[in-house]
Amino acid sequence: MTPAPLNLAPLELAGRLDRLRPLIDQASCSALLITNLTNIRYLTGFTGSAGVLWVEEKEAWLITDGRYRSQAAAEVAATDTQREITSDGGKEKLIGLAKNQTTIGLEANNVTWADQQNYVNWFAPTAVTPTSGLVEELRSIKDPGEIDRIENAGHLADQALAAVTDLITPGATEKEIAQTLEKEMMVRGADGTAFTTLVASGPNSARPHAQPTDRQLEEGDLVICDFGAQIDGYRSDMTRSFRVGGTGQGPKADLLQAVLQAQQAGLNAVANGVPLKDIDAACRNSLQKSGLGDAFIHGTGHGVGLDIHEAPAVSSRSTDNLRTGQVITVEPGAYLEELGGVRWEDTLVVTETGHRALTKAPKTL
Amino acid sequence: MTPAPLNLAPLELAGRLDRLRPLIDQASCSALLITNLTNIRYLTGFTGSAGVLWVEEKEAWLITDGRYRSQAAAEVAATDTQREITSDGGKEKLIGLAKNQTTIGLEANNVTWADQQNYVNWFAPTAVTPTSGLVEELRSIKDPGEIDRIENAGHLADQALAAVTDLITPGATEKEIAQTLEKEMMVRGADGTAFTTLVASGPNSARPHAQPTDRQLEEGDLVICDFGAQIDGYRSDMTRSFRVGGTGQGPKADLLQAVLQAQQAGLNAVANGVPLKDIDAACRNSLQKSGLGDAFIHGTGHGVGLDIHEAPAVSSRSTDNLRTGQVITVEPGAYLEELGGVRWEDTLVVTETGHRALTKAPKTL
Repeated sequence: MTPAPLNLAPLELAGRLDRLRPLIDQASCSALLITNLTNIRYLTGFTGSAGVLWVEEKEAWLITDGRYRSQAAAEVAATDTQREITSDGGKEKLIGLAKNQTTIGLEANNVTWADQQNYVNWFAPTAVTPTSGLVEELRSIKDPGEIDRIENAGHLADQALAAVTDLITPGATEKEIAQTLEKEMMVRGADGTAFTTLVASGPNSARPHAQPTDRQLEEGDLVICDFGAQIDGYRSDMTRSFRVGGTGQGPKADLLQAVLQAQQAGLNAVANGVPLKDIDAACRNSLQKSGLGDAFIHGTGHGVGLDIHEAPAVSSRSTDNLRTGQVITVEPGAYLEELGGVRWEDTLVVTETGHRALTKAPKTL
Repeated sequence: MTPAPLNLAPLELAGRLDRLRPLIDQASCSALLITNLTNIRYLTGFTGSAGVLWVEEKEAWLITDGRYRSQAAAEVAATDTQREITSDGGKEKLIGLAKNQTTIGLEANNVTWADQQNYVNWFAPTAVTPTSGLVEELRSIKDPGEIDRIENAGHLADQALAAVTDLITPGATEKEIAQTLEKEMMVRGADGTAFTTLVASGPNSARPHAQPTDRQLEEGDLVICDFGAQIDGYRSDMTRSFRVGGTGQGPKADLLQAVLQAQQAGLNAVANGVPLKDIDAACRNSLQKSGLGDAFIHGTGHGVGLDIHEAPAVSSRSTDNLRTGQVITVEPGAYLEELGGVRWEDTLVVTETGHRALTKAPKTL
């Protein structure tokens, strides 16, 4: 099957560097050296696997190596980024650029200690200072082109799930289901998977991050499928849970229902301005009421975009409020050694008064 | 198709921590805090996406969070690793462990500057010092179980290539070929791809790291396929180049031949004790003689294992010698704006007197 080409809203690369510059200034830096490749992709469009981006008041320089000469030229054309091809890790060029600066920011949550030591040596006597989350802050609010890609990735995942539902029967292995989900996303036009597909059944479903095994599904097993697609680097993230043979009655049906209720409680709370920790509390309180408080052993959600986990975190420790245009997951789960686990997860975009789901596969029990 | 189960030699996890301890001592550390998750997997078997490993003279502690409680217990059982489940990033446990130490090593090429600053604060007044490549040094020599997995991954890639050869015809798109290669590896039993499959045709082939696009192959195009499979985390890496419609005669045939000759020159030089830079020089000299010296714009090769790029690097800057049991790639290429690009790559294990190929797809022109 040749997938129909997607008609996507354009990515608005051009204004991003200019939106970053005041944040660099607020961080008391005269320039920022960006080492996080996803941040570089967001700001310039460059998708190479090696390079750094230097951003100062008037100029921006992408410094990479000869493998990326023509690719870099093509990819950053929409932005005001100059290019330098080097074979010395950018040393000479960066030392030249640093001469005019007072304080150079590094991305402290990305740059390695070894590289930080190099930069301090290269730039001396100019000060080098840690910064945190400057580009991530910009990235957390998605523009229409970004939301379009995440929504289309979500749609591919919805379709892939519909195509494998018949496989969730006794005898099928976790790996078979995972591989089929991935294949079905790819043949429909995904550029890749959003992350390694998780399919966990029976006792494995009690481990929230179990990798798919050769275990064969058995009648009555709980099964968790956690997966997503990728388009232009933008990802979707969705989890659906099943009981092999149908939901039926009894403790597994109750578990499926209780976690679904908790997810709905979280989703109902989403809107612009709501504290992120309130979304977490809504899910957690609901599970607590069902006697499953201790069985919920991970965070409630996370931002999704060019990274599968990005700002903002949805957890009891979050201190920020939701904002319109943020794309997050809401994904409560409950994991019991004796029964197995259940998780329900959707990716959604925050709106003024609520949210719009970007993953839409049915959740009827 | 349900793949036949592979009959793989066991992974010898048990001795690895004890082989690391003298290296920690030689680095003048009394303990090493390992943050690189691949290094943690190598030493303990733990495959989770969050955690740190503390190794001191008598004890080793894997510190992770509640999501991985049962998984961690199961995975590290073969090694002498104790486990601590925390929700504070390991702070309290690590501060306790640090009290008995004189100097704590961090992995300077992995730990972020922000984490390094945290650790310095947590461990004060105990000294924190950078280390480099301690576990990577161990990892560079593969044991039979590791080689077995890489070879089986290579075999899956060989078979996948055979299954797509008919697709390398006018009208097929790069993405179609890439997706088919990935699907063919997965249905034959790969746990995943070794990295995102590269298929680049025509003008795109002149960019060594171009991602697959919707471009349709045309008669006479050069096409590069660079891909690999993954088994238990171990990867294979292979590149084959084609001319659509057959090699024929002329400058593209000459380019295919010249790079293949360069690869053969590199492969002929491989053996225990040979300086790594000699492998690079053998390829580079061969291309120089063909007038393609400037068209070879990347390194000659790299170690392969749990990471797709690991020690040792095969480059003009390498200072070490090859050693028996190392698994490397030899992958010269030549990239010309007007003709396109060609690369030939195999994964091989170094032996006393030469090498044994772990990727074996034919390279006849």
